[in-house]
Formats: sequence, structure tokens, C-alpha cells
Amino acid sequence: MARPRPIVTLTTDYGTSDYYVAALKGVILGIVPNARIVDISHDIPPHHVGAGAFVLWQAWSWFPPNTVHLVVVDPGVGTDRRIIAGRYDERFVVAPDNGLVTFVHRDRKLEAIHVVEDRRYCPGGLSSTFHGRDIMAPIAAQLASGESLRSLGRVCERLTLLSLEHRARFVPDGIEGAVIYVDRFGTLVTNVHANQVVRGSNGAASWTVSVGGETIGPIRSTFGSVSIGEAVAIIGGGGLVEIAINQGRAVDRFDANAVVTLRQ
Amino acid sequence: MARPRPIVTLTTDYGTSDYYVAALKGVILGIVPNARIVDISHDIPPHHVGAGAFVLWQAWSWFPPNTVHLVVVDPGVGTDRRIIAGRYDERFVVAPDNGLVTFVHRDRKLEAIHVVEDRRYCPGGLSSTFHGRDIMAPIAAQLASGESLRSLGRVCERLTLLSLEHRARFVPDGIEGAVIYVDRFGTLVTNVHANQVVRGSNGAASWTVSVGGETIGPIRSTFGSVSIGEAVAIIGGGGLVEIAINQGRAVDRFDANAVVTLRQ
Amino acid sequence: MARPRPIVTLTTDYGTSDYYVAALKGVILGIVPNARIVDISHDIPPHHVGAGAFVLWQAWSWFPPNTVHLVVVDPGVGTDRRIIAGRYDERFVVAPDNGLVTFVHRDRKLEAIHVVEDRRYCPGGLSSTFHGRDIMAPIAAQLASGESLRSLGRVCERLTLLSLEHRARFVPDGIEGAVIYVDRFGTLVTNVHANQVVRGSNGAASWTVSVGGETIGPIRSTFGSVSIGEAVAIIGGGGLVEIAINQGRAVDRFDANAVVTLRQ
Repeated sequence: MARPRPIVTLTTDYGTSDYYVAALKGVILGIVPNARIVDISHDIPPHHVGAGAFVLWQAWSWFPPNTVHLVVVDPGVGTDRRIIAGRYDERFVVAPDNGLVTFVHRDRKLEAIHVVEDRRYCPGGLSSTFHGRDIMAPIAAQLASGESLRSLGRVCERLTLLSLEHRARFVPDGIEGAVIYVDRFGTLVTNVHANQVVRGSNGAASWTVSVGGETIGPIRSTFGSVSIGEAVAIIGGGGLVEIAINQGRAVDRFDANAVVTLRQ
Repeated sequence: MARPRPIVTLTTDYGTSDYYVAALKGVILGIVPNARIVDISHDIPPHHVGAGAFVLWQAWSWFPPNTVHLVVVDPGVGTDRRIIAGRYDERFVVAPDNGLVTFVHRDRKLEAIHVVEDRRYCPGGLSSTFHGRDIMAPIAAQLASGESLRSLGRVCERLTLLSLEHRARFVPDGIEGAVIYVDRFGTLVTNVHANQVVRGSNGAASWTVSVGGETIGPIRSTFGSVSIGEAVAIIGGGGLVEIAINQGRAVDRFDANAVVTLRQ
Repeated sequence: MARPRPIVTLTTDYGTSDYYVAALKGVILGIVPNARIVDISHDIPPHHVGAGAFVLWQAWSWFPPNTVHLVVVDPGVGTDRRIIAGRYDERFVVAPDNGLVTFVHRDRKLEAIHVVEDRRYCPGGLSSTFHGRDIMAPIAAQLASGESLRSLGRVCERLTLLSLEHRARFVPDGIEGAVIYVDRFGTLVTNVHANQVVRGSNGAASWTVSVGGETIGPIRSTFGSVSIGEAVAIIGGGGLVEIAINQGRAVDRFDANAVVTLRQ
């Protein structure tokens, strides 16, 4: 059987109104004509590295082994920030070294991570503001076509990581976590994992969730467990505790920067 | 000749800022690596089953036979609402049983419709909030790879349908219809069909269209038949009477919930 | 080796919430099942031909030779405006004849341009409001499958062009240009080219850029050359001088319709 078509995913803050994403795709297709390119999101809030890191982490392993995840949220473009290419859990990532791999790095098995020093591949020369197109897309395409990480540059010794924790911590009277993402439904996604809350005597239902001191209630099984317009804590599709309003927007009612606490 | 690559279309209210759509795609590509995935829309207004039903209906037959249309607007996720898989006019649909197939069901030839009971395919287990990824995407992939509807579950005896009518009705003094969709240009799409208005003595031009008692005028052939900023009734690309404002937004001037009347 | 899969790109003002883009894709896939369809942008502001012309121009040559660029921003749909199909620099374009090719025409090598008169290909008949689906998508698909321009209609003698210039002009005391696009970051893209500003004695850094009389400063190498919230002129990824605010939106501070001047 033929080798499966290589998959390259794209996660950026480029939006979809300009030609920026298309330029990435054109460059990739010019190098790997049979690549399958999948958009993860181009609506990461501009310059919001934390949101990009979250989306990459959540999407990571839904794609087959050898997928190349290209992630460009790059407020430091043109400065001396580095570009990295790595491999975790059999999938590749190419990104600026600004913390975009934070959650993946903390939660997935690191296999290798290199600094991208190779500039051979820029098809149209190097601009100072569009390294996604000029460096990172060609590198992602090279990895998709079988190039080794080692050939791209030296091993990355000190990776830039955000201070955001991908996992809440246990405290004497329960769990203390944070909101690490707000999705398009306005739902607050916390860093409290499903397997942290099942430890209690009655499982998930035995906890009381609060945000910034305001009580939400126990962890329910579905949004529909409360009336329309009411707040509810559930375990979301990513295996994390989420605070939602049934058919409404939790981010408009609660402070996304407040501490999330779970008490039994 | 090789079998053509299977097409899976996606229509959701997931938006494109999160990783949700990408998770569907990753799951489908994991099962059918050569699937061609086409986004119809991910900007169905959250939880708006009627808009999803309209978009599915309109897109339906522009795709080749054997296309699998996966549609997820699912406010009842995690409750006991069922999931269905059906076949109309040689194309498949997979959706929650909440009315998303209403317009297709009323306007297309039903070949088979089954309740999805099979849970063999969830690649990462079953969450309570993301059945699009955990059940419906795998089922769509199975259908795309040739699995039979029959193997997925029993025949669906009572399908959930919305009360929206896909077709206006004749009344003694003309036609009475409704706005069933508002598009991105703010144009009101009604359920009055082109073949309903050609019945009059002078064809489409002989009717006077009103919305909520406010007269728009006759049915014209193009937006440009009126001045910029003026309202106009036309027959849109979907074969339905639409109420538009030339280079403006009709939804800001007219009540989308009002009755649409055509008089001769 | 097999012929590479034909690429068709799409640039429209259709948005992504309706089924309109999907209908184009379905039609194209029905004619050229192995086409690779790449979205450039569907968020051209409604009816904004100038923005469409800019995006097409910038994306143009990032795609391989023989790519077919289908561009539909078509406020005159249904009037007697013509549809054109052309070839510049080894890539094809299909568009309404309303100025969408303005920048490409002024900056790329014209090989042929024809008026589309052939109506054989409309798969579902011809509507008066959706020529993107009914005429242009089928024509783009025909070109992608190897049909000649000549077979589509007579040579286009007089092409419609916008008055926008793709290139600023030299004046006695410097350069005078205009903002020709505003991107999703709110950055103002001007028609001053990198190769125009390198002519000065000290290269790009020797110029002082102003918008509407307000001084921005010299041309810097990166956004990060100024503090967050400060305005900066740079040479953007498209090789054009851009006026940005570091991590902010220049369009909210400056008048996009004002003259852009560069003085040494």
C-alpha cells in the first residue's frame, strides 16, 4: 500500500479574511503536493499565545501519528525569538518558541525538540513579518515529506513555557484551579481534569464548584441538567471541568481570571 | 477506474475558533484516510436547529451521490435525544434527531432512516458533551467507507420534525409564507418557491410581495433592479423568493418573524 | 508520474455561515472530482471589489502554476456585467468583469483574457443571483480540467479596471501613495513597494512615513521596534509598506483614506 498522504494542520491568529492562511497553504502544496492540510483554527485571538497553546493541546492527538501541527501565534515575529520543531507522542509541531507548546509539553511524551536554524527552504526569500509563510510553513512541509528534525538545527536546550498550568492542584480542602480557555460558546474551560474529580468518595457529583467565590454547584452530566439560562459545571469533551450556562454564555456572568475551587 | 474518494460534508454550530471542528476531521481521517472533507458551515447560530436544517437542505444536492452530510447542532447533547442516520435522494445524513432533517425530509425522496445505536466506533470513549466527535463523526466515516445504514441500528419509526414549512401555502387571495432563514448579507429567505409564483398570469412579476404588511413590490430579476439602499424581492439562488436591500441588510429593516404575503 | 491534482482557489464575499461556498465546492467536485480546493478568503467585505482585488493579487503567485483562482465579489450579478477568464504568469483567473483583476493585471504578465460566453456548463440551470455557482464555478472547474480559455468565448478587448494604483508614485520631494487594504489586525497596507523605498541613500530607514499629515516615523524592520501601542511603519510580508500599531489596530487611529507620504 502507498504511504498515507501526510497531514499538516494549521493553528494561527491570522483570521480568515486576508490571504495569509492561503499563502501558508500555497507554500506547503508547492513543497508537498499531496499534503492534506487541515485548518484547526485561524481565530486564535490576535497575539494570544495561551489560547493557541490550549487549542493545540486539545487538538493534538485527534490526528493520526506523523501529523505535523503548524502553529503560528507570533507577536515576536522579526525579533530574535527562535523557531522550534519538535515531536511529542508521534506527532510533530512547528512553532515560534514563545510558549505555544506549553500544554503539549507538560502533558505529552517529548520525543525530540530542535531549534530551526535551516533557512534553505524559504521559497520567496525572508520577510521580517511573515515567518509563518517564509520559515515555518516550509519547515512543516519538509517534516511532512519525511525530513528529520535533526537536520533542521541543534537540539533545543531551554524551551520557553508559559506559567499556565495544564492541571489544577490539590489543596487541603479540595482542588484549586484556573480558567485556561474560553470557547466560542462563552464556556469557561478549567484545568481541573476529569481524573482529578473522580477521586472523591462520590465521584464527580460530590464536589461543589465555585468561581471567584460564587457557587456553581456539583458537576453534572450534561448542560441540560439545569434550566436554560442557569449555570452548570460539567466535564467537557476535552476531559476538563467546564463552567457553562445552558444555552447561554458563562464568560458574560463570571470572571474568567478568578480562582476556580472545588470543595467536597 | 478507482472508486471516487468519499465526500463527507460538515455543518455545525461549533464555530471555527476552537478545536472542535478539527477533532471531527481528525476522527474521520483516522477512519477513512482518503475522505474528502468539505465544510458547509460552522457558523450556524449556536443551538439554532432551524438554521442548520435550512443550510443542510440548500446544500444537499449540490454534492455528488453518496456524499455523507454530517450535521451537528445539538443543544440536547447528553440527554436521551437520539442520533439518526438516513439516506435521501442518494445522499446520506448523520445528525441528532432534533429536526435538523426537517426540510430535507419534506422535500427529498426518503430512502431509509435508522436510529444510531451502534457505539463500537467511538475512538476515544464517549463524553457526555461532544457526541459530534464521539459518535456522529465515526458513524459518518463508517458510512463514507461503505457501511450500511441497517448495520447501525433499527429503523427510525418517528422522526423529530420542526413545525417550519419548507413551502408556502396558497390562500384565497394569493400566497402566505414565512421567512425561514436570514443569510450573511441580511437577506430574508422565504419559503415561497419559484414554481409557486410562476403560476400567476404574468409570472413572477405579477405578484406584490409584502412582509408584515409592508409592501416590497413585485418580484424583480436582480438586486440591481432597484437603487442602492432600496428593498427588492427576487428569486434567489436556492429557487426561493428572497427579500433583500440592494447592497444593504433587509433584516435590519423588516421583521423576520412577520408573515410574508404575495398578492396579485 | 501522474499529472498533479489541479488546484482551484476561492476568494469571495460569501461569508462562511451560509451554504453558498459549499455549493461552489460541490459544483467543482462534480466536474473535477480530484480537484484540490483551497479557500483564500470568504470574508471579503460584502461587495468590496477593491479588497477582493488586493487579496487575489497578494495570494496570486504563492500557488503553483496552473492554479485556477476563482474570485467572486459580484455586486452586479444579474445585470449585463460580463464574466471573464484569463491567464497571467501561468495561473488562471475566473471573475466578474468589475475590476477584481485590477492589481494582478497591473503587476503580472498577461497571457490571455477572454469573455466567458459559454453557458453549457451550468449544472442546475442559471439563476439570476448566483452566477458564482451557476457559471463561474463550472468554468473554473473546466479550466482546472484542461479546457482552453479560447473555447470559452471571444478575447476580452476592454477590461474593467479600478482606479486604485498598485504602486505609489514618486513626486519631487519623495513618494506619495495610498492605503489600498486594511487587514484583520487593523494594519494599513499601502501601495508603496519595498523596491521603491530602497532607492534612497540609506535605504528604507532613511524615509519618514506620514499618513494624512501625521508622522509615523522611519521604516523599521519589525513591529517590535516600537513599544506596545505605538505606531510603526514596516515592510510587510507582501513587500509593501504597512502602517501598524504594535499589538494594536492602526485603522482605529489613522484615516485609511488619507494620502500616505514618504519624505527623506
